[in-house]
Amino acid sequence: MIYADYNASSVLSDEVRQYLKERLENGPFANPNAIHYLGKKVMEGITNSRQICAKNVGADPDQLFFNSGSTEGIATVFYSLLTPQKRNTKHIVIISSIEHPAVLNTAIHYQKEFGFELKILPVDNNGIVDTATLEKWLQDFGEKTALLSIMAANNETGIIQPIEDISKMANKYHVPMLCDTTQYIGKVPFDFEKSGIDYAVLSGHKIGALTGIGFILAKDPTTMSPLFTGGGQEKGHRGGTQNYIGIESIAVALNKNSEKIVNWNKILDKKLDFETQIKKEFPKIVIIGETVSRLPGTTYISYPKLHGQAIQIELESHEIFVSTSAACSDNDIATSPALKAMNINDDVGRGVIRISLNHDSPVKNYDTIFETLKAAYRKLEKLNKICP
Amino acid sequence: MIYADYNASSVLSDEVRQYLKERLENGPFANPNAIHYLGKKVMEGITNSRQICAKNVGADPDQLFFNSGSTEGIATVFYSLLTPQKRNTKHIVIISSIEHPAVLNTAIHYQKEFGFELKILPVDNNGIVDTATLEKWLQDFGEKTALLSIMAANNETGIIQPIEDISKMANKYHVPMLCDTTQYIGKVPFDFEKSGIDYAVLSGHKIGALTGIGFILAKDPTTMSPLFTGGGQEKGHRGGTQNYIGIESIAVALNKNSEKIVNWNKILDKKLDFETQIKKEFPKIVIIGETVSRLPGTTYISYPKLHGQAIQIELESHEIFVSTSAACSDNDIATSPALKAMNINDDVGRGVIRISLNHDSPVKNYDTIFETLKAAYRKLEKLNKICP
Repeated sequence: MIYADYNASSVLSDEVRQYLKERLENGPFANPNAIHYLGKKVMEGITNSRQICAKNVGADPDQLFFNSGSTEGIATVFYSLLTPQKRNTKHIVIISSIEHPAVLNTAIHYQKEFGFELKILPVDNNGIVDTATLEKWLQDFGEKTALLSIMAANNETGIIQPIEDISKMANKYHVPMLCDTTQYIGKVPFDFEKSGIDYAVLSGHKIGALTGIGFILAKDPTTMSPLFTGGGQEKGHRGGTQNYIGIESIAVALNKNSEKIVNWNKILDKKLDFETQIKKEFPKIVIIGETVSRLPGTTYISYPKLHGQAIQIELESHEIFVSTSAACSDNDIATSPALKAMNINDDVGRGVIRISLNHDSPVKNYDTIFETLKAAYRKLEKLNKICP
Repeated sequence: MIYADYNASSVLSDEVRQYLKERLENGPFANPNAIHYLGKKVMEGITNSRQICAKNVGADPDQLFFNSGSTEGIATVFYSLLTPQKRNTKHIVIISSIEHPAVLNTAIHYQKEFGFELKILPVDNNGIVDTATLEKWLQDFGEKTALLSIMAANNETGIIQPIEDISKMANKYHVPMLCDTTQYIGKVPFDFEKSGIDYAVLSGHKIGALTGIGFILAKDPTTMSPLFTGGGQEKGHRGGTQNYIGIESIAVALNKNSEKIVNWNKILDKKLDFETQIKKEFPKIVIIGETVSRLPGTTYISYPKLHGQAIQIELESHEIFVSTSAACSDNDIATSPALKAMNINDDVGRGVIRISLNHDSPVKNYDTIFETLKAAYRKLEKLNKICP
């Protein structure tokens, strides 16, 4: 079995699994806000985890707040900055055309419900946001912009954005910048302070921690308003009894990911080799974002006019689990919004599958994927599984 | 070691621990929204868990939405019902005087930030909400009331409210009722449909499941608005990749709690016996809510004028972990708001400790607690550890 869908969700990492085995067996379990020894022990675990996480992402522990994951983190930033009071002077929100639904849908919500003006920043044909247009926009209406939200790396394509250049612009024009770093942290060295970003978010399940845990990083935490108050946990920034087991798991995962970040190099080398080989076999193949910087373990690959889902199913029958964002059926053929934003046509858009591996995936997985994908393409070519 | 702080947070239940041991070892791990077999398997687990949970609380699976816990659930209900548009016609919020901070602070937030009028419903000296006043209020201004929020059982005292009577009134006057059932579900048989309540909430860590997971029950889900949209998970009611491991753990915990709900009877019998014995030894002792219906495993007990925290520390030195909500020091003596609402004076209020056991706690724990508490009271009496 080859799991190649890490961008969707990671397998629980070996280190986290090992940690939890002992942790769940031995406790302690208590409310971290309790005044007794057990409560203090649990709170100590949270404090240690916060320090470990903060160190791993180049932030101050006081800038890091645990929550349930990136979707909540993104909603918190929008809620904090897009207040009705601010709308009077700052009524514009800028997001890129390739943002995750967690950003896009939240932005649309504030547009529809609260009358904010939503400006969608285009990307070029390589999937890189148009920084020249952004600079012009910030010059023209930066003063009226409540929030700029640009992701660090796209979940589908893995294409990496020039986030430090963008944050420099944002800072220059005093526009708060949220960066969706969900796919980025743990795969690429990241330093929050150096990045210049105002807000960043993470989901534990993307890096091998438990599900339902994540954190938000805030350059200036006083700018944040809590989505839920509760008993004032997380210094008033996020109410509710802290998910201490999840919190510990994210510290373990992040620590291990940082240690192993060099492992990505061999994954990247082998991936590029795999991409070269498969293109040699099938010259019509398109690797999305081939010429630009991408996440080391991500390949978004299309055989134009073949059904992406047919390829996915073919691989699955050989126990290789990949994803496709293109729902391809006789009646309904759709290219994903991220690909449309890159001006990719439907022939290519409907033929994509995403292969995403982890730093600790065996590199030889690419050999198996190569052989199986080759056989799948050959078979589907013959069967003429071409979208109409 | 005796853990007697279950109302603050439960120990991970044996069944959940056993379940997770195998679950974390064997997987599968995947994004439940992925189209491949692993994703579908994970989604199947969520669907099964939803059915199990719904069955255990007498709800329809379509009325149950997983989230991060009660604080989020409460915030979601307030957010759904207290919209600026509604404020024009329905600008009043009624909560009881003994609500958890998760309700109280959220209500104050809507009062301060959005101009809702907050009406605090008193309780009598036994800690039971004043239903006569409530009926009058609903008669007088039910039409203008956006939300009524009354808890099922108080976290400190364990005192149980007549929630079915209250929901009947709420329904009669067409006022939506949120019931904070966080302390109630799993300890007292609960049937959402029969209860007549519009919204109920739960946190998994209170019933032996993992931390950071919970659910909201909604009689009519179409009345709910999501606090975060994300990718439209939970039928659009709660965005973000589902916390499937947490979700499975809450199903395991709830199922086991329901099976074992009869176990509470022996805990209750032994508790009442313990309370009788300790009062016989120390006639001045006050059991908060002694004459009314309380959670089976909860005793909120005060030795008037003794420092509650001194008692807690004394017990802790014998590895018995209880809590006290009264911070008692030379400079700062405080009676908790819930006790103040019951007109309990500071002599009693500052002397309280809360002993809260679980259905699977050994009943003989009460014998040990009795002996240790007796010794603690004797010692502190002599040391004259009396609040000034």
